[in-house]
Amino acid sequence: MARVSIIGTGTMAKAIADVVGRSGGAVDLLGRDDAPVTGEIVVLAVPYGALADVVAQRGAQLAGKVVVDISNPVDFTTFDSLVVPADGSAAAELAEALPASRVVKAFNTNFAATLSTGTVGGQPTTVLIAGDDADAKALLAGIVTAGGLRAVDAGPLRRARELEAVGFLQLTLAAAEKVAWTAGFAVAA
Amino acid sequence: MARVSIIGTGTMAKAIADVVGRSGGAVDLLGRDDAPVTGEIVVLAVPYGALADVVAQRGAQLAGKVVVDISNPVDFTTFDSLVVPADGSAAAELAEALPASRVVKAFNTNFAATLSTGTVGGQPTTVLIAGDDADAKALLAGIVTAGGLRAVDAGPLRRARELEAVGFLQLTLAAAEKVAWTAGFAVAA
Repeated sequence: MARVSIIGTGTMAKAIADVVGRSGGAVDLLGRDDAPVTGEIVVLAVPYGALADVVAQRGAQLAGKVVVDISNPVDFTTFDSLVVPADGSAAAELAEALPASRVVKAFNTNFAATLSTGTVGGQPTTVLIAGDDADAKALLAGIVTAGGLRAVDAGPLRRARELEAVGFLQLTLAAAEKVAWTAGFAVAA
Repeated sequence: MARVSIIGTGTMAKAIADVVGRSGGAVDLLGRDDAPVTGEIVVLAVPYGALADVVAQRGAQLAGKVVVDISNPVDFTTFDSLVVPADGSAAAELAEALPASRVVKAFNTNFAATLSTGTVGGQPTTVLIAGDDADAKALLAGIVTAGGLRAVDAGPLRRARELEAVGFLQLTLAAAEKVAWTAGFAVAA
């Protein structure tokens, strides 16, 4: 099983570390200024606004890695739009900033609690994965599946735009108390 | 219970008619060139590409009505994008074309089968409703709920952009056989 480095120390970082741990894979949970990444897969479990700093600090280390963007680039001052261009995505921006990495979008449609429990609304938690590198997606999907969740290939990295729309919508529903932070969108097969 | 006119005779038109029927409401299922609409709520159950014709033919009749846009404006030649501007939505276009109507977005995230059966992935089928008129949303939500489904207020009409992203993503997942046409996104509360 691949080694996974997770940059970030928040709720999502810990929840994704749970998944990797259940999969039997090795995981390093790194702060933003910690040791170099060692994993073949590097999860950037930081807010969208911190991605530029990670790229600046660790861009060279990320060459050749599978880099997982989990961000939801929501304008948290208005909670009424995204801060990325309407025809783009945070993942597309990251891929442009890290041309030597294999960027995939994943986990942004999953609330942390549903990653830890493995269920949402009675269904197995499903991680939607978008990316342009089939091997990168398969590597991540293998960990997700071994960690007890479902993985679904959501298409090319271009679909990150729709995944970020789902993530944004789900956040607005939770903030408005229409769904619980332990629930949200489930994917029924 | 309000009277509902449904313009369209396809699978979605019939599935929405099922919901209205179960609610105890009266429903007229109209073809595109049929009799004038009589309902307080008018569901435009036609493909996105047919909306302009409906507006041209019936725009005057739709003044004062709650007009429900269910469309997913997918580019069906490429199945890789939407045909509306990235910062807009089909619903926003419709609202602009029908300034005297109260346009809401609904049903576009529900596959027809899940409206008829009332369940998706073991959860009650949830109709996400976006719109700027609270009374219009509440009127539709009342019918949806009385018809045995769940209704969730997804916010202002501006959120139709995200609902259309969800609908598009769900269609791509079904076309790629990642989810069944009887399944897809469920909303766990």
